[in-house]
Amino acid sequence: MQISDKFREECGVVAIHAHPEAEKLAYLGLHALQHRGQESAGIVTSDGERLRAHKSMGLVADIFNEEVLTSLRGILAIGHTRYSTAGDSALLNAQPIMVQSNKGAIAIAHNGNLVNALAIRAKLEGQGSIFQTNSDTEVLVHLIALSREQTLPDAIADALRRVEGAFSLVMISRDRIFAARDPRGFRPLAMGHLAALTGEKKDTVVFASETCAFDLLGATYERDVKPGELVIVGPEGISSRFYSPSPAQSSCIFEHVYFSRPDSIVFGRTVDLSRDAMGRQLAREAPVDADIVVPVPDSGNTAAIGYSAESGIPFRLALIRNHYVGRTFIEPQQSVRDFGVKLKLNAIRSLLEGKRVVLLDDSIVRGTTSKKIVRMIRNAGAKEVHMRISCPPTISPCFYGVDTPSKKQLIAANKSIDEIRDYIGADSLAYLSLEGLKKACAEGEKTTYCSACYTGHYPTKWVDVEEIQPVQVSE
Amino acid sequence: MQISDKFREECGVVAIHAHPEAEKLAYLGLHALQHRGQESAGIVTSDGERLRAHKSMGLVADIFNEEVLTSLRGILAIGHTRYSTAGDSALLNAQPIMVQSNKGAIAIAHNGNLVNALAIRAKLEGQGSIFQTNSDTEVLVHLIALSREQTLPDAIADALRRVEGAFSLVMISRDRIFAARDPRGFRPLAMGHLAALTGEKKDTVVFASETCAFDLLGATYERDVKPGELVIVGPEGISSRFYSPSPAQSSCIFEHVYFSRPDSIVFGRTVDLSRDAMGRQLAREAPVDADIVVPVPDSGNTAAIGYSAESGIPFRLALIRNHYVGRTFIEPQQSVRDFGVKLKLNAIRSLLEGKRVVLLDDSIVRGTTSKKIVRMIRNAGAKEVHMRISCPPTISPCFYGVDTPSKKQLIAANKSIDEIRDYIGADSLAYLSLEGLKKACAEGEKTTYCSACYTGHYPTKWVDVEEIQPVQVSE
Amino acid sequence: MQISDKFREECGVVAIHAHPEAEKLAYLGLHALQHRGQESAGIVTSDGERLRAHKSMGLVADIFNEEVLTSLRGILAIGHTRYSTAGDSALLNAQPIMVQSNKGAIAIAHNGNLVNALAIRAKLEGQGSIFQTNSDTEVLVHLIALSREQTLPDAIADALRRVEGAFSLVMISRDRIFAARDPRGFRPLAMGHLAALTGEKKDTVVFASETCAFDLLGATYERDVKPGELVIVGPEGISSRFYSPSPAQSSCIFEHVYFSRPDSIVFGRTVDLSRDAMGRQLAREAPVDADIVVPVPDSGNTAAIGYSAESGIPFRLALIRNHYVGRTFIEPQQSVRDFGVKLKLNAIRSLLEGKRVVLLDDSIVRGTTSKKIVRMIRNAGAKEVHMRISCPPTISPCFYGVDTPSKKQLIAANKSIDEIRDYIGADSLAYLSLEGLKKACAEGEKTTYCSACYTGHYPTKWVDVEEIQPVQVSE
Amino acid sequence: MQISDKFREECGVVAIHAHPEAEKLAYLGLHALQHRGQESAGIVTSDGERLRAHKSMGLVADIFNEEVLTSLRGILAIGHTRYSTAGDSALLNAQPIMVQSNKGAIAIAHNGNLVNALAIRAKLEGQGSIFQTNSDTEVLVHLIALSREQTLPDAIADALRRVEGAFSLVMISRDRIFAARDPRGFRPLAMGHLAALTGEKKDTVVFASETCAFDLLGATYERDVKPGELVIVGPEGISSRFYSPSPAQSSCIFEHVYFSRPDSIVFGRTVDLSRDAMGRQLAREAPVDADIVVPVPDSGNTAAIGYSAESGIPFRLALIRNHYVGRTFIEPQQSVRDFGVKLKLNAIRSLLEGKRVVLLDDSIVRGTTSKKIVRMIRNAGAKEVHMRISCPPTISPCFYGVDTPSKKQLIAANKSIDEIRDYIGADSLAYLSLEGLKKACAEGEKTTYCSACYTGHYPTKWVDVEEIQPVQVSE
Repeated sequence: MQISDKFREECGVVAIHAHPEAEKLAYLGLHALQHRGQESAGIVTSDGERLRAHKSMGLVADIFNEEVLTSLRGILAIGHTRYSTAGDSALLNAQPIMVQSNKGAIAIAHNGNLVNALAIRAKLEGQGSIFQTNSDTEVLVHLIALSREQTLPDAIADALRRVEGAFSLVMISRDRIFAARDPRGFRPLAMGHLAALTGEKKDTVVFASETCAFDLLGATYERDVKPGELVIVGPEGISSRFYSPSPAQSSCIFEHVYFSRPDSIVFGRTVDLSRDAMGRQLAREAPVDADIVVPVPDSGNTAAIGYSAESGIPFRLALIRNHYVGRTFIEPQQSVRDFGVKLKLNAIRSLLEGKRVVLLDDSIVRGTTSKKIVRMIRNAGAKEVHMRISCPPTISPCFYGVDTPSKKQLIAANKSIDEIRDYIGADSLAYLSLEGLKKACAEGEKTTYCSACYTGHYPTKWVDVEEIQPVQVSE
Repeated sequence: MQISDKFREECGVVAIHAHPEAEKLAYLGLHALQHRGQESAGIVTSDGERLRAHKSMGLVADIFNEEVLTSLRGILAIGHTRYSTAGDSALLNAQPIMVQSNKGAIAIAHNGNLVNALAIRAKLEGQGSIFQTNSDTEVLVHLIALSREQTLPDAIADALRRVEGAFSLVMISRDRIFAARDPRGFRPLAMGHLAALTGEKKDTVVFASETCAFDLLGATYERDVKPGELVIVGPEGISSRFYSPSPAQSSCIFEHVYFSRPDSIVFGRTVDLSRDAMGRQLAREAPVDADIVVPVPDSGNTAAIGYSAESGIPFRLALIRNHYVGRTFIEPQQSVRDFGVKLKLNAIRSLLEGKRVVLLDDSIVRGTTSKKIVRMIRNAGAKEVHMRISCPPTISPCFYGVDTPSKKQLIAANKSIDEIRDYIGADSLAYLSLEGLKKACAEGEKTTYCSACYTGHYPTKWVDVEEIQPVQVSE
Repeated sequence: MQISDKFREECGVVAIHAHPEAEKLAYLGLHALQHRGQESAGIVTSDGERLRAHKSMGLVADIFNEEVLTSLRGILAIGHTRYSTAGDSALLNAQPIMVQSNKGAIAIAHNGNLVNALAIRAKLEGQGSIFQTNSDTEVLVHLIALSREQTLPDAIADALRRVEGAFSLVMISRDRIFAARDPRGFRPLAMGHLAALTGEKKDTVVFASETCAFDLLGATYERDVKPGELVIVGPEGISSRFYSPSPAQSSCIFEHVYFSRPDSIVFGRTVDLSRDAMGRQLAREAPVDADIVVPVPDSGNTAAIGYSAESGIPFRLALIRNHYVGRTFIEPQQSVRDFGVKLKLNAIRSLLEGKRVVLLDDSIVRGTTSKKIVRMIRNAGAKEVHMRISCPPTISPCFYGVDTPSKKQLIAANKSIDEIRDYIGADSLAYLSLEGLKKACAEGEKTTYCSACYTGHYPTKWVDVEEIQPVQVSE
Repeated sequence: MQISDKFREECGVVAIHAHPEAEKLAYLGLHALQHRGQESAGIVTSDGERLRAHKSMGLVADIFNEEVLTSLRGILAIGHTRYSTAGDSALLNAQPIMVQSNKGAIAIAHNGNLVNALAIRAKLEGQGSIFQTNSDTEVLVHLIALSREQTLPDAIADALRRVEGAFSLVMISRDRIFAARDPRGFRPLAMGHLAALTGEKKDTVVFASETCAFDLLGATYERDVKPGELVIVGPEGISSRFYSPSPAQSSCIFEHVYFSRPDSIVFGRTVDLSRDAMGRQLAREAPVDADIVVPVPDSGNTAAIGYSAESGIPFRLALIRNHYVGRTFIEPQQSVRDFGVKLKLNAIRSLLEGKRVVLLDDSIVRGTTSKKIVRMIRNAGAKEVHMRISCPPTISPCFYGVDTPSKKQLIAANKSIDEIRDYIGADSLAYLSLEGLKKACAEGEKTTYCSACYTGHYPTKWVDVEEIQPVQVSE
């Protein structure tokens, strides 16, 4: 059940080179990346001769069992977990996409969004290509197959030069793993290794969207795949090439604000540190005389701790999450007020009664959930509610792999901050400044950030605004 | 559970043009064709604007429920039910195949096998095409998209001219249904109509592999789609063209021997009539002094009635089928002798005791099941068992859409009739002659038959012997 | 899907004494008895120390898998398969019923119906007993626990003397199997043995409702458990006692007409022989000038063969069953005429066109299905349809374990034969006489029959007419 | 997946009197109580005439859907959610237990454990009673049915006087709800009301194990059901009687330490307040020179905040929970070190590196999980790890409804604190004193507590040590 109006990440990817149980490592990696997409997941492995795939709708833990993993037994593997919008929610669009072509069998898993996919697709269709999915990723596979380059690495590099937008991707062939990031480095992709098992000569090379996957595998983080880089791991070892010069890097700052797990190193920086700094900066930018600081759990937790530390106002977990909320829930006809939020959260009266509360959250999308949470806190006896948001107002949609509602639905694109404050019923409302956010995320140290959703200034020349909706498939 | 070694048909197809519940008619049609393939099924519909698809592994009754059918609501529909060999058993290969191309969105459902698919596929891959399934049918879709013809009907005709082999196929676009048969007419495809509903002007046009689907829908059989014919049903009405001259027709005689339902009209003739005539002819060709005629149910029933009528030997249902046999079954470790056959059949001692039995079956593939059935009948007290087969010995594999084991496994390709008799433990064994079979099936009246599996003489110039196994997918 | 208005049997039971895979033999036995009840099934085993149970809604093949059977591993086992009416369809009422009492842990599986259950239940409740199911069988367990007899065999015999009605039952304790039949022997219960495995001293003793279960297990039929007999198999061997004198035996004749599988020996006689004799007798009692004899498959098959043999009119399978009919089916809103029957049956026009047809069925319950089948045959071109029923008109409900509709719904209780003929649209209609039926079933040879449903004369003094409906449970 | 060795609560109960959607309120209440038992759940409703039940294995959200709830439509309802030990994990033992008796149909849902159940059961079996479950609760139902009292309230009171131990229970009859607590008030049971819907005269009365269920329903907490009290809600209104004098109250202190949700009022006191006070008291009792305070999430959160507030050492969420951990998980053969804990928790290196850490948890059961968490924190770079436990060492099993391992497995029953510290690898280890714990929980204000698990002094005269294991059932 989607009871909170959050932005949604579209994907997580993982890749394993050379391990006798590559399929199980990919499976564990996907498990650690489950927060990046809960709609479908898939794994493709190679045993050195032949690719094998399994993908399905649902959570990683439900899709893969002992029997499925045994059938996938391989030494190389890639995996993908995905969230997608309603129209594209079919198994058809689940990844990895696996095809047979003149370059042999390959499979690809993609996090991000290609902004020139529709234009390329139209051109390829005109030349007689057929498309079996609605996914922009299928365009890439066509470009690889159609490339006049003779080797697979050259053909991949050729294809990557032709697409524009956001992509962190991993690919598998019979005997190689490929990992690449777009020239602006919108989405994360980390590289690490796992010490060789006894009797094996080489370390296992691993790639993942976030380093929390490495922690679960017991792997060590080495570095990020760089913007514009294509890393190839094969029998000959690891090689790297820059298929394209990289313009200014534009890493998605919202990975630090909300998407990534706080325990991950993303774009070279631990997410939790950024969130703590956001809270501290917010306390400096928008102080308030209050009794307690309360986070909207769990994504607001660290920023609230930072706000509390900086302001000296005590931190209290006065909103409790119900961890057993399932996907669907049956409502009484005489519906309970604020039913959806109540299912997920409950306020502790004895902590809130008579208190002036600083309420910390990471974003306001449509405003409907924030309104209910503010009301819940007031109903529990709070005297004042001061909402603090750990990033600037979101005013523009993302075209680089984040599912954002249309501009019409984004409250900050349509209302002033005062109007939003009135709508959600808070006594005061403040957002973190863009400068404050960038500072909290250490802009300029390891990366520079894309902040198009806060500014409307997009780093790519053009963006794809039409939707691809040729067919609707439910499998 | 596959407990009997039968040959297996690979597909059944159905198509509906213009009915407010086209998806439900396709669903019922598939239900009537379920015997032609129990592994996967799918339906693609058009509401006049957009194609919608649903396909899955399993039986028609399990795949489609009210909710799924509602999501498919359309006015045109095609459907497919499929059996496939182990290596290809993935959902990936389930049909219809739906694609987006420069000719718009189309979907195709195919019964048969293309004998030059591998060659074309290799050529297309060389030109940069990608293949996402292992199915020969995907080749056809590529050929349609790549055709230089401007209209979809022309492109389809163009593509059909380039493939060789067996195909009865139905296609759907936004506003049209297409139905075609290969120039030799290997596999059946019937055309009929359903009287217009009150308030509708035009009759609904229906196509199906067998006319039993028409009976369930309340539709009337008109004629077969002819070899080399492409029938197009669209807003402008029904049109027909012959995309290729038809050489001598080669209809699969095994449709009459075993595959088709006895209540169907196939190649213009009711199957049950052929089977009755096979039994009568067999009684003339291979008479025996016996007490009762017993069929291996249900496929041997009608031939046994014919044998009994011609010979005057009483017909008895002395083998009883268990209708609740599921797909999997758990065997004791101290396994019951002839466990598999016993699960499916039981012999009635009081009918068999002391009797000389004529046992009628439609074919012997590997011989293992026949051996167990003969033993079961002897154990029930039969004094003599005379096996009679209602077709000639099968000595060659089929390349036109029937799943046959390799030549090594075909008992009649490796043993003489006397040796087979000894192997299965019968007192005598006789097969129907090829001439007798053709006569029983009215050769020359409505069609001429392909009998390559009995003779090794294939009507097409060449056949595809390699398997396509690029990847193994389990979804 | 229940598309035919047949009477329904309520149960099948099986028991195994001393086999290292008793649970698997019980499972196979239930499989062979699946036609006696498709709603729920269960098995209870003992490993010599402890009872283990598994029961669930559904078919035997779906309820039990390798994992479940492994968890039930035992050396003794009983099993039960059940059909029940809507109000009682809960898992709660699935059998075997297992309880802990002062006689130790026991479980019971029951085929039949106790006619004084309500009266006993009321009395026991008055004394403070609690009931957790709606089943008459629970009464028996209470009586066993409350018996003042010291040993379990004595307590069982004591309890059996207190109940009246129809019961063939098997019970299991830690180390014994019990099998008993009511003094009138309404329902069948056969006893057999399986040769000892190598290394075992004693044969395995098996009990089952029908001998077709023995055939599947490879067991040999010995004799029926006798009316009024309690057979006990334990460490000391097999013993038998007659807990009650048996009045005239009243075996359910409908077991021979319809319920039992034709390959079973029931009440000492092979069912198929009875059905053949019914057809022959019917041909003598109600001859007709016709061209072909056609059964309603499969239950009318043997009687039709008999009718054909006696009359000399050719037997033809002109109605074909669709073997893939599932439980639920989605109908178009513009429903196909006679949809339900068409899903299950189809008529072969080329066999029926212009023919005078004798149509053989085993019973007419409400008449609605017969009406549709007669219409189907006429629509396929038959000139005349002469319906012949292989038993007398059913005019009274059964209280001995058969699910019959109320008297209001029984067409023969409310209409004359001429009226029924007109209702179903046949040219003529004839039922077998009661004398003819009894003769066909060899009345007096091995047993005498109950024919209360044809006469309204019930062999027990009184019957339970109220329903037990304390609570409705869905589990 | 049980990866942490926590003590487990056995049940949560809820009851609703008079609401047009009583079944949905019960369902929501169970949802809020899901943390008290995740193995099975059930609801019994009454529509004023008849009881209806549904219970199954699994989570509340999976067991109940729209269709099931519709079939349960009623105006009174009780619900139960349950955890149970392996041997008793069958659906058979799921609650509520519903029976038919001379007092009419009743159902009961029970949280707690009867310590004299075995003795009563033996006596009842000796008198001929049968038991169909392994649950102590069934004893209560027998006692009610066997009571000589004429009315149901009197019979219930009579039965409650005969049992000893811990029980908070709710019951439903055709037209009444009953709620009772044992005389020592071991387990919680709160009472509240929901304002009458428009058009209804009376408020809806609700009972639940914890008040967080009231918050979700929008109900108001009034008071606890008192020790020794039986509350009856029926057509005549609410009445109360004390069926037994209450000795000193012995409320389970572990409800405040771990079981209950922090947002619940339990025994009259908000749980979160107690936990904050435990942390503060622990900081006073066991101070340490350190850099950060880190909770084991989520149960250690509030105590850690209290410890931080009292000590001035900063609070950091340096252990991150993975919220997508399913029940089963497939491990690589070359297993990842500390696999189980890593699946659930990850440490943030950048927060821990070089730090002296106070690690707060609520209990140590076997010590294995604590050892892994300490190692995880050290591996993330912590310089020192000081473990602090917010209650005293657990040295004795609970017989009042908490699932504790045997004394052999309780690390604190077998090792000194120094030995435990060495075993888990911490630099220091301290437990909260019993006096400190009681003070934190406001002993004496609203209740007095049972602390038998810390002292071995049980408030009841005797306890049941044998297990009831007559039969093993898997349904």
